[in-house]
Amino acid sequence: MPLALLIGNKGYSSWSLRAWLLLKQLGIEFEEILIPLYQADSKAKLLAFSPAGKVPALRADDILVWESLAIVEFIAERFPDLPVWPRDPAARALARSLSAEMHAGFTALRSEYPTNFRRAPGAIAAPSAAAAADIARIDASWRDARKRFGGQGPFLFGEFSAADAMFAPVVCRFRAYRLDVSPQAQDYMRAIEALPAYREWTESGRAEPWVLEKFEK
Amino acid sequence: MPLALLIGNKGYSSWSLRAWLLLKQLGIEFEEILIPLYQADSKAKLLAFSPAGKVPALRADDILVWESLAIVEFIAERFPDLPVWPRDPAARALARSLSAEMHAGFTALRSEYPTNFRRAPGAIAAPSAAAAADIARIDASWRDARKRFGGQGPFLFGEFSAADAMFAPVVCRFRAYRLDVSPQAQDYMRAIEALPAYREWTESGRAEPWVLEKFEK
Repeated sequence: MPLALLIGNKGYSSWSLRAWLLLKQLGIEFEEILIPLYQADSKAKLLAFSPAGKVPALRADDILVWESLAIVEFIAERFPDLPVWPRDPAARALARSLSAEMHAGFTALRSEYPTNFRRAPGAIAAPSAAAAADIARIDASWRDARKRFGGQGPFLFGEFSAADAMFAPVVCRFRAYRLDVSPQAQDYMRAIEALPAYREWTESGRAEPWVLEKFEK
Repeated sequence: MPLALLIGNKGYSSWSLRAWLLLKQLGIEFEEILIPLYQADSKAKLLAFSPAGKVPALRADDILVWESLAIVEFIAERFPDLPVWPRDPAARALARSLSAEMHAGFTALRSEYPTNFRRAPGAIAAPSAAAAADIARIDASWRDARKRFGGQGPFLFGEFSAADAMFAPVVCRFRAYRLDVSPQAQDYMRAIEALPAYREWTESGRAEPWVLEKFEK
């Protein structure tokens, strides 16, 4: 039985993108189950798949796993030959630290600049002090990871890893709202945007019929 | 060189407890570095240890790792013979899902009922609808984990695992504010409270000189 991944709208669901992009980039086959979010019956549909009622969730045979980071670790164990995390222990520790920081943090950035793949790039209000600190922290951590472990590859740890999947929605935010970041961060953003899977997600999101006003800024 | 763990005040730092409790329960030796939080020089001291400027952070030789979940995975890899996660793949997937849900979620519960080991148990205002939903979800997930994987042991997955470390601060909250939970959840809380390491943390927190008014409700 193939894997089945539950996701939300591609136009807006930053969490869904993370797991989806990782699976696509690693070449893992899966069935995609898309539930439009913020509709009257969305929660019931999500709860029928997963007890947390959230996206993403992954079903593999009789195992259910949800939350991006838990899905990443599950994939790493299920496919030990795939480069889910960097091989070097110090790089892997940093990749996991940054991914967990992204998983739980940067709440000011996330609330002021919602992920929106449907948005034509353009600036809105300047970031609050808290969001500016989030942006600066992300920019610095990208530069640090690439400097220490990027080698000749364009991604945070050289070749694509789960850490890039975790930060992909931030690339969308930085682009969609024209947020001010370093030249090195801009190089990295272009590398993410050039991924065929990222482009496929973006185009699908733009083609969706659902417009969620609460995320339109 | 032994491991070094950076933590905050034991009276209030829920995140610090998670990593500390896991190391203690597994019998892993480490040097404890305690930085009192919310003082004028706290941030500078944290940043001197870790670029995210947050607790907990773990240093092992030349590797630095921060964020509870990243520390847990680092420990699991560094000590593969220790039962950091349940062995059964389905149990491990659930343990990671619940741990990641705790890592990033339950924000209403966390803001209305701050972790406070110094507090004499007693009720305050009833939970908001959002906090009540958080409490119900935690209670249900504890019961589900124990029913499916608890066996004869008192913990979420029978024997103590990282999932218990992740939820230990919730046990403090449920107790300190006398929140209403199921009898099964109360049994589980007693098992956590009986852990020597949990008692040691509690007693140390109570003996600390620092009182943080913002967490005193």
